[in-house]
Amino acid sequence: MKGSVEQGETSKAPLSSGISKGVAILDVILRFVAFIGTLASAIAMGTTKQTLSFFTQFIQFKAQYSDLPTLMFFVVANSIVCAYLILSLPLSIVHIIRSRAKYSRLILIFFDAAMLALVTAGASAAAAIVYLAHKGNVRANWLAICQQFDSFCERISGSLIGSFVAMVLLLLLIILSAIALARR
Amino acid sequence: MKGSVEQGETSKAPLSSGISKGVAILDVILRFVAFIGTLASAIAMGTTKQTLSFFTQFIQFKAQYSDLPTLMFFVVANSIVCAYLILSLPLSIVHIIRSRAKYSRLILIFFDAAMLALVTAGASAAAAIVYLAHKGNVRANWLAICQQFDSFCERISGSLIGSFVAMVLLLLLIILSAIALARR
Repeated sequence: MKGSVEQGETSKAPLSSGISKGVAILDVILRFVAFIGTLASAIAMGTTKQTLSFFTQFIQFKAQYSDLPTLMFFVVANSIVCAYLILSLPLSIVHIIRSRAKYSRLILIFFDAAMLALVTAGASAAAAIVYLAHKGNVRANWLAICQQFDSFCERISGSLIGSFVAMVLLLLLIILSAIALARR
Repeated sequence: MKGSVEQGETSKAPLSSGISKGVAILDVILRFVAFIGTLASAIAMGTTKQTLSFFTQFIQFKAQYSDLPTLMFFVVANSIVCAYLILSLPLSIVHIIRSRAKYSRLILIFFDAAMLALVTAGASAAAAIVYLAHKGNVRANWLAICQQFDSFCERISGSLIGSFVAMVLLLLLIILSAIALARR
């Protein structure tokens, strides 16, 4: 608690300190859940493939996530955000003890916002492709591929969930850090 | 400057106050540029159409942004962010004078982050579709449509720029607000 003495403000009540600690603990929990979400998304998408062999045994139709560059971007984006979230966890834990930290919180807000943009970009680009795989587009003559590759489509649709959860959690993490900065 | 007296901290140098004012002015400028970016993106995409009549004069091939639901989402997302940015401009201007405002900055950080997510979602979903229109996808049997609809494709590609610029600027706006909160 050296930080609090340095800041020259010691008039805060214990209740206020308790709230600050609560915000810091919530930050750690949300960060961990977001980590799980992006990890699950990356793994679920990265292991997706389906082989169809109903025409003949010699001509097989395979579908896997790496056929679509957008889905590869989804996996890469989720992996980067996942790695960032686990690396930022120690800093977030330090904030429980040092609740008046300033520069480390600024750094967290900046990277949280950048990672929010990255995970959103990956998730919504993949969602656009998943939507197309389900519905197709008559005007552009792009046919829906989900009739054939049903389990492939279910898997890529499901793997978006973790990513969108992480998006909402990162949004909450940014506002939590901003509240902690404002409460100093 | 009533705010500064209320906060009970009057020991800051004039230089420090000047920097706070500079940050607030930069916030207004970046917000305005981001507004222009999203406005330009929404208008450029929203007015995109191309008619081809090279087969016969009776069978015409039309392409417009509303053929692709993802591009409609892009226009809607950019319009919402554009409206938010112009509505938040007065609050941002107030911060030049009241540089110690706390709750209004927290509100700005929250909505800036939400709008960052929205504009990123719109831009990257549209980018995924634009990429597909340019390159197509052999495995999914989706053909590139840009050979036929060249000016349509140029227009939808170009309209992404304003949106991505707004994305970067919103990221900067979040960190500027966080710096202003930390400097109080």
